[in-house]
Amino acid sequence: MNIEKNIAIVGLGQVGLYLYNELNSKKKEIEIKTGKKIKIVAISAKNKNKKRRFKIDKKIFFTNPIKIFKQKKIDILFECIGQSDGMSKKIVEYALKNKINVITPNKALIAKHGDALSKIAEKNNVNLEFEASVAGGIPILRTIKEGLATNKISKVYGILNGTTNYILSEMENSNETFDLVLKKAQKLGYAEPGNPKLDLNGFDAFAKIRILSALSFNTKISKSNCIMEGIQNIKLEDIKTASKLGLRVKLLGISEIINGRLFETVHPCLVSKNTYIGNVNGVMNAVITEGKPVGESLLQGEGAGPGPTSSSLLSDLLSILRGNIKYPFGISYKKRKSIKTFNNDNYANSLYLRFEVKDKQGVLSLITNRLSKFRISVKRIIQTPDKKNNKATIVIITHKTTEINIRKCLSLFKKNKNILKHPTLIRLYN
Amino acid sequence: MNIEKNIAIVGLGQVGLYLYNELNSKKKEIEIKTGKKIKIVAISAKNKNKKRRFKIDKKIFFTNPIKIFKQKKIDILFECIGQSDGMSKKIVEYALKNKINVITPNKALIAKHGDALSKIAEKNNVNLEFEASVAGGIPILRTIKEGLATNKISKVYGILNGTTNYILSEMENSNETFDLVLKKAQKLGYAEPGNPKLDLNGFDAFAKIRILSALSFNTKISKSNCIMEGIQNIKLEDIKTASKLGLRVKLLGISEIINGRLFETVHPCLVSKNTYIGNVNGVMNAVITEGKPVGESLLQGEGAGPGPTSSSLLSDLLSILRGNIKYPFGISYKKRKSIKTFNNDNYANSLYLRFEVKDKQGVLSLITNRLSKFRISVKRIIQTPDKKNNKATIVIITHKTTEINIRKCLSLFKKNKNILKHPTLIRLYN
Repeated sequence: MNIEKNIAIVGLGQVGLYLYNELNSKKKEIEIKTGKKIKIVAISAKNKNKKRRFKIDKKIFFTNPIKIFKQKKIDILFECIGQSDGMSKKIVEYALKNKINVITPNKALIAKHGDALSKIAEKNNVNLEFEASVAGGIPILRTIKEGLATNKISKVYGILNGTTNYILSEMENSNETFDLVLKKAQKLGYAEPGNPKLDLNGFDAFAKIRILSALSFNTKISKSNCIMEGIQNIKLEDIKTASKLGLRVKLLGISEIINGRLFETVHPCLVSKNTYIGNVNGVMNAVITEGKPVGESLLQGEGAGPGPTSSSLLSDLLSILRGNIKYPFGISYKKRKSIKTFNNDNYANSLYLRFEVKDKQGVLSLITNRLSKFRISVKRIIQTPDKKNNKATIVIITHKTTEINIRKCLSLFKKNKNILKHPTLIRLYN
Repeated sequence: MNIEKNIAIVGLGQVGLYLYNELNSKKKEIEIKTGKKIKIVAISAKNKNKKRRFKIDKKIFFTNPIKIFKQKKIDILFECIGQSDGMSKKIVEYALKNKINVITPNKALIAKHGDALSKIAEKNNVNLEFEASVAGGIPILRTIKEGLATNKISKVYGILNGTTNYILSEMENSNETFDLVLKKAQKLGYAEPGNPKLDLNGFDAFAKIRILSALSFNTKISKSNCIMEGIQNIKLEDIKTASKLGLRVKLLGISEIINGRLFETVHPCLVSKNTYIGNVNGVMNAVITEGKPVGESLLQGEGAGPGPTSSSLLSDLLSILRGNIKYPFGISYKKRKSIKTFNNDNYANSLYLRFEVKDKQGVLSLITNRLSKFRISVKRIIQTPDKKNNKATIVIITHKTTEINIRKCLSLFKKNKNILKHPTLIRLYN
């Protein structure tokens, strides 16, 4: 048997390049731990001559990744391009169909095409591993698939996006606005310099929640419509008001089984400063699972950056080198069930509502009357006048109410000239 | 190939019995996840007719576990007796030598004989798995061996004993003495009713630290003398004084590489209430690893009880059923290095010292003079008189000093008639 395994890395951005360097420097260690020698025989990126942090071997460089497979015998492909479709999908499919193991940190690809890709992998008896796609260096997928394998998991949730968690923490710490802190995050390399949209609008966290659900509940990846909100509308004043109430804003991803139906969501939550999740700050990620018989388990670690991501990519590599073919989602494609989805309308929470209104008599009672018409009962009201601008801010904390109810109620405020903007809504985490 | 795997469970205490029930109820699920059927073909305990929480099949009951192997073909043995030697060691050795896979939650056995047992397992090409031996339901061993496999871990520490953590938390919450809370813990099943000594004196946590070190640093299990202190001397007044200072007492296990040498210890620590570890309360366990490139990782979960333990035992079972032989300690016995140990004398910490003294003039200056003679500088002094008994309590928080220094300094106080008891020492966690 050939004990030298040939590796190709496609995509040499921050993650791919760091991985290239790690693999070269840890060859010996990997051999000790697995008995297998590895050799990087091909790398690919758009630009061969771009200035890079680590020197690359240009003799094994391919501009067209598809050509790699025609010229070299590859055992393991690292896909580090990061598209949900396009070349990412193309080379992963190509590799799996040709019995080449695939490792990828690409959550967009897995959340969208994971079911179909796992089917191809199983059919061809090769591995498709994606530990790095969720929560960076935290080995949460392996923990669910193996460490907690026979538990009945009923809920998985957490802070799944380091960029947004950094921004929210830093706004609170520095007292600076969203826009300023976003620029800081981009400078530090936490947020994409060009387009941070997929982090900020919750899309990134949502892809991770889809993957976590499939693994936790042994289901197909859900395609249903969900409540997905990002942090774009969170203002510094929301964070300051929350702080006065002993609360902190966190972007949570939540997936749970409610009455046999799947409920998945990503939205900003107000959590108590006294809770564990309220104290996971900066670029940290945290994932909490609730299962039987194990109870609550909690994993925390750095959620982003090439170091933590590379740690997970290498754990996938070792799993493959140690030599067993595993189902990509823990159980076979055939056995993974489709699951009906919970009706979002029935999702119920206490709410934080911030209204910007004209500072006129009767506006507060107008708001409270409408809330009461929809049986949304008020727990707390904080009114802050802005005399100079003849405005006021009204923050209302409500008792629990359903999504459909609050949607109907809030839509009415659109038409009122005394309500200056559509109210900001943040759900309180139960 | 035979896809039905025969299982024996030896030891039907809390853990073994719960496991027996779990295996029977999860047969189908295990088959779906692994493609293998399991069958419990033998169970063993001292007393066949003892009243038990779950009904056992008496037709497969053996009073002498050694007879199992002579009468049945066993593929996987669960050792749930829990001795560090004796029958536990005997049957595990017997099984491994006869190419039977072994799964055990027995930390005393692994911490003492893990090296020799892993050598036998490797020689016979079978698995020896012990995920449940450390931190109950938290899959920390698998995480270190697989999820963080190629990281260079420099430190691993945490709260590794649920019983003592419950007692410390409950003393603070209920304002009750150690003895009262210990009785409560025994009633709730957290502490052994007969002999809770191994939990209370730090031995249990220490066995876990030894196992964690070996896995984290790829070393042989250390046999060196270490600082091992339990919580037996922690008084309610220590907890109350700590609380006033914003601190909390936690029994920590710590293992780290200092200048290329291994340092392992278990002792009570004062940690800030604002830290993560200061908020892991009740029977919860938590393990924190520091590694490169992954950074700090943190795992928390229920550390004791048959449910969480059984979760880990089953994760070992699935790992074996999925079919690959793994090195018990992640790398082969031959490649695991012996490591020199750090000189405990040089371990340095700020200290909390509580003196019970006669309420006489000059006693405080006697203490501070002696401390200053050993260059132990004082950060804070809290003196509380007990006029009725003509006594006083003096609590001193010092700046950092070494073990050897403090040992020499404190020994002098033994001879003084105004110092009523040897002072209580709690180290502040850095």
